[in-house]
Amino acid sequence: MDIASLLGTILGFAMLIFGILSSGASIMDYYDLPSVIITIGGSIAGVLASNKLKDFIIGLKSISLAFKEKVIDPGAVISNIIDLSNVARKEGLLALEEASNDIEDPFLKKGIMLVVDGTDPELVRGILETELTCLEERHKKVISFWEKWAELGPAWGMIGTLIGLVNMLNNMEDASSIGPSMAVALITTLYGSIIANWLCNPVATKMKVNNDLEVIIKEVMVEGLLSIQAGENPRVIEEKLKSFLSPAVRNDLGPDGGEE
Amino acid sequence: MDIASLLGTILGFAMLIFGILSSGASIMDYYDLPSVIITIGGSIAGVLASNKLKDFIIGLKSISLAFKEKVIDPGAVISNIIDLSNVARKEGLLALEEASNDIEDPFLKKGIMLVVDGTDPELVRGILETELTCLEERHKKVISFWEKWAELGPAWGMIGTLIGLVNMLNNMEDASSIGPSMAVALITTLYGSIIANWLCNPVATKMKVNNDLEVIIKEVMVEGLLSIQAGENPRVIEEKLKSFLSPAVRNDLGPDGGEE
Amino acid sequence: MDIASLLGTILGFAMLIFGILSSGASIMDYYDLPSVIITIGGSIAGVLASNKLKDFIIGLKSISLAFKEKVIDPGAVISNIIDLSNVARKEGLLALEEASNDIEDPFLKKGIMLVVDGTDPELVRGILETELTCLEERHKKVISFWEKWAELGPAWGMIGTLIGLVNMLNNMEDASSIGPSMAVALITTLYGSIIANWLCNPVATKMKVNNDLEVIIKEVMVEGLLSIQAGENPRVIEEKLKSFLSPAVRNDLGPDGGEE
Amino acid sequence: MDIASLLGTILGFAMLIFGILSSGASIMDYYDLPSVIITIGGSIAGVLASNKLKDFIIGLKSISLAFKEKVIDPGAVISNIIDLSNVARKEGLLALEEASNDIEDPFLKKGIMLVVDGTDPELVRGILETELTCLEERHKKVISFWEKWAELGPAWGMIGTLIGLVNMLNNMEDASSIGPSMAVALITTLYGSIIANWLCNPVATKMKVNNDLEVIIKEVMVEGLLSIQAGENPRVIEEKLKSFLSPAVRNDLGPDGGEE
Amino acid sequence: MDIASLLGTILGFAMLIFGILSSGASIMDYYDLPSVIITIGGSIAGVLASNKLKDFIIGLKSISLAFKEKVIDPGAVISNIIDLSNVARKEGLLALEEASNDIEDPFLKKGIMLVVDGTDPELVRGILETELTCLEERHKKVISFWEKWAELGPAWGMIGTLIGLVNMLNNMEDASSIGPSMAVALITTLYGSIIANWLCNPVATKMKVNNDLEVIIKEVMVEGLLSIQAGENPRVIEEKLKSFLSPAVRNDLGPDGGEE
Repeated sequence: MDIASLLGTILGFAMLIFGILSSGASIMDYYDLPSVIITIGGSIAGVLASNKLKDFIIGLKSISLAFKEKVIDPGAVISNIIDLSNVARKEGLLALEEASNDIEDPFLKKGIMLVVDGTDPELVRGILETELTCLEERHKKVISFWEKWAELGPAWGMIGTLIGLVNMLNNMEDASSIGPSMAVALITTLYGSIIANWLCNPVATKMKVNNDLEVIIKEVMVEGLLSIQAGENPRVIEEKLKSFLSPAVRNDLGPDGGEE
Repeated sequence: MDIASLLGTILGFAMLIFGILSSGASIMDYYDLPSVIITIGGSIAGVLASNKLKDFIIGLKSISLAFKEKVIDPGAVISNIIDLSNVARKEGLLALEEASNDIEDPFLKKGIMLVVDGTDPELVRGILETELTCLEERHKKVISFWEKWAELGPAWGMIGTLIGLVNMLNNMEDASSIGPSMAVALITTLYGSIIANWLCNPVATKMKVNNDLEVIIKEVMVEGLLSIQAGENPRVIEEKLKSFLSPAVRNDLGPDGGEE
Repeated sequence: MDIASLLGTILGFAMLIFGILSSGASIMDYYDLPSVIITIGGSIAGVLASNKLKDFIIGLKSISLAFKEKVIDPGAVISNIIDLSNVARKEGLLALEEASNDIEDPFLKKGIMLVVDGTDPELVRGILETELTCLEERHKKVISFWEKWAELGPAWGMIGTLIGLVNMLNNMEDASSIGPSMAVALITTLYGSIIANWLCNPVATKMKVNNDLEVIIKEVMVEGLLSIQAGENPRVIEEKLKSFLSPAVRNDLGPDGGEE
Repeated sequence: MDIASLLGTILGFAMLIFGILSSGASIMDYYDLPSVIITIGGSIAGVLASNKLKDFIIGLKSISLAFKEKVIDPGAVISNIIDLSNVARKEGLLALEEASNDIEDPFLKKGIMLVVDGTDPELVRGILETELTCLEERHKKVISFWEKWAELGPAWGMIGTLIGLVNMLNNMEDASSIGPSMAVALITTLYGSIIANWLCNPVATKMKVNNDLEVIIKEVMVEGLLSIQAGENPRVIEEKLKSFLSPAVRNDLGPDGGEE
Repeated sequence: MDIASLLGTILGFAMLIFGILSSGASIMDYYDLPSVIITIGGSIAGVLASNKLKDFIIGLKSISLAFKEKVIDPGAVISNIIDLSNVARKEGLLALEEASNDIEDPFLKKGIMLVVDGTDPELVRGILETELTCLEERHKKVISFWEKWAELGPAWGMIGTLIGLVNMLNNMEDASSIGPSMAVALITTLYGSIIANWLCNPVATKMKVNNDLEVIIKEVMVEGLLSIQAGENPRVIEEKLKSFLSPAVRNDLGPDGGEE
């Protein structure tokens, strides 16, 4: 589980509660069911209308992805590839098939299979890069679900407020009711802001961060596999792949990540 | 018919009605014919002025596209191409002409004809990619119709509100009329927001989603056709094309989508 | 004359008048000469300061371009090029010189002259593409005139309103004058919105549409000329160029646009 | 001196004065020293914090660039290059050294020196294009100074207004002071708008226009120099370079710009 | 320490204090602990939820980078590389190992080691450019921390203000408390604006400036190293690298930066 997203989301919610209580109001003053329904219902309806039903459902479910820590350790991936390159060098490309049994990542596994099958290097690159591009496309679709909601949430909040304001302005005989009416009208705008800035915006951003990391890792795999196929020296491969890492991570790998 | 867009649009409208009724107002308080005319009329006039007459009409008609489900099944397209590659391998490229009789997609059909005619591969790619680019251009024109409306709707809503406010401010003698006058003034802003966020924005987004899907499918076709023309092994073609799919769709195709 | 832009602009203006009259106000309530001067004067001064004097004048004059229908018929251009390719094939490239006498488009004419002069194909492409790029640059300059005005119009409208508000707030002794003073203050914002959303935004968009169309036509010309120079088969050229067209336009050309 | 920028800036200022006077207010009502200090001081402090000290000073000084007319005559540059190509063709590349004595543009001069020194054409292109890219980078830095100020000006204007509003709201006992207090609060927003829309935005835009023109001219020089080095025919060079010009400028050059 | 950022930040803060004092208010009127907590807490929670925990901490710490002057002197780097090229020319590539002992920049050092090891030039370029790309990615992550905060600060400021307004509108019986309540409500918006425009926006911009400079320097190093490896003439290398500099910096290097 990803501590940062969970912590940030809980902390943000705590700030809202604290903000309400510290201004001397009661939580219930900020709860208005019809406003919840209009703002969330309207904006979700807009997101639904913007997508294919299947993508909409994938988008809804994807919230778990933001909170689920994908433990991707770039260093481990690189060690892994260097080990594979040693195997390939000593025992030939066919020995990779057995060595790949322990590998869990389906992308890397597929790549190894292509190499073992003696596929043309250009084709290996083509297939893996198409897969990577399409993976990014799928991620972008999910991210756009949250971005669209972050956009439509405040918009429907404003629609709700306008509906409330028009109603209030039509009924101004009782001066004492103006304040509370306007308070209710503003609540949808508040809800819209919260949806966008507490939930959707951070979730979408986090997913982009995860996507970027996954894409870099997969690019490392593609580079590594093609180097193995080309029979390059494991030392050179290591040098090549380590340039994808930050100096800090690189040092963890150690100078002896290679040949021995 | 596309359930998602239809459902989302109806649900969004229901939210508007619910919002009005739950605030204790009557629907008629939110209906003001002149405001409808100014906001919709003004923004549509702006969209008209931004386009060629022909494109404007195509844009208006295109609303059906957002609601019409195009059943594009990537898996079926790939099976189809693999079948064609088997035919081409066993019976030669000329046999594709007959095999293409069942194919409905005019893009794929045209591509097969080019291959059957023995057109130079570079030229086949050039022609099909130009066609694809121009298809995207046409889609973008239609999408920009809705984006322009989504932009001009709130803008004309604000123009209507400013007209109403100026009028109200010039006639403040009767204090009791200020509220209702301002309510009417705000209604154009409400209409503008609804046009943009309930209708135009989701329609434009949905059309982009449909466009992206169609373009990917057509790119799969181009790749497949060129592989067939190059006489590649159907297994390799399958591997290549499946990298365009998500793992879920890929599994539906099954491991036996190929040679047999 | 381009019906769409003219119609849209007139219709938009009618909406403004209708909006004013339907709210029971008089047109004169919305006319304030100093406000016109500040909003239009200030924003035009900003556009002037953003440009070279020569470009500013070209920009001002360009309004006619938005309303002038350029009758560009892609089908006719393609027929034309196919005719030329037939001439070149039967009578040689030199015969193109005579055949080009009827051609009015200076871009196509220049291209033919380059081909007739036996210029190197790479150089022909280079010269024509540079010309095309520079044409787009010039169009962009004109479009940016209107975009800048669309940006500065509302900005100066707000400046005018702030000036009016500050003045009103300094003179609140006479309560009855507050309303009218604020009405006048708001009028510059109204003017700014109208400049942007009724005039500048649609004009800029229309010019982009025209530019895109012209560029595609010219790209078709470049492709066609190079194919003629390469001595390609007129049928192939036709196939190539028709892929730039939408299926609808393509059918108008007919299957017999070529060889005979 | 560039008439357009100077005229536009003066005219814009005149509009401000006119706007104030025509609303019956006195100029002094709009002058508030603390507001000037907060808005200009705060936004300039932000621009300072966003830059290296050296770049900040260059940015400040650059205002003169917007008002200084750089008389770049594309036609003259092209004639110049064609003359050089004639010299090179008749007397050899080494004769260019003498011919370049009259040339003032250091970029063109450097290019000629590289050609005279017999530098490899690829290297000539590389050096000149790197120089061009770095020139653009330097221009962008200066432009971003003005864009940043245009962004921070209104932001600090709003900060000033919020400070004023909070103060006013805390001191509402004396109803008669509310208006003037709020007027003062609004003045920082007015100042921010003026900084952005009267000064910074047009200056930044003008600098971009100047940059684009300079870059095109320099690209013409690079193309021309490489053509001279390649020993191309002056007629061809002329044809090539003239495609960078608009038809109007081209006609000024005349058909006889070349060989004679 | 970077004078500009430190000076700008202090100056900006002084402007805030001056703004408050000059409007006759007391600093304490603008200090409200709950508002600080909501605005800073909420926006930081959002930034936390948008990032991996590790990246969040790196982002927080990075503030020192904006204020720490990295003394990168492009001229010195170029002199350095020219010296190296002279060594390589006179004593061979292997002599670079010793010459590189004085070099502190790890990027340049790594590049020299690759050259000394006789790595293939394509691979040297590949490794160094991957490293440069990944360096930029890491910088972008840190910059996005500040940009995200600059975005969420005002958003949470508005959430705080909406919470305050709803509370105030629900308690309007005591007219005298309306002003102060609204003042408090506005304070979160003020805080949000200050976070964004005084702190985050300038810090993010400064980091981008630093990143751009570092990338250019490293590109100079790559170009230089590859030229040395290719055994190019030191004079030519100097000419090549100096085209990365502005004319001013170039002159400081002097005409005699090379061979002697």
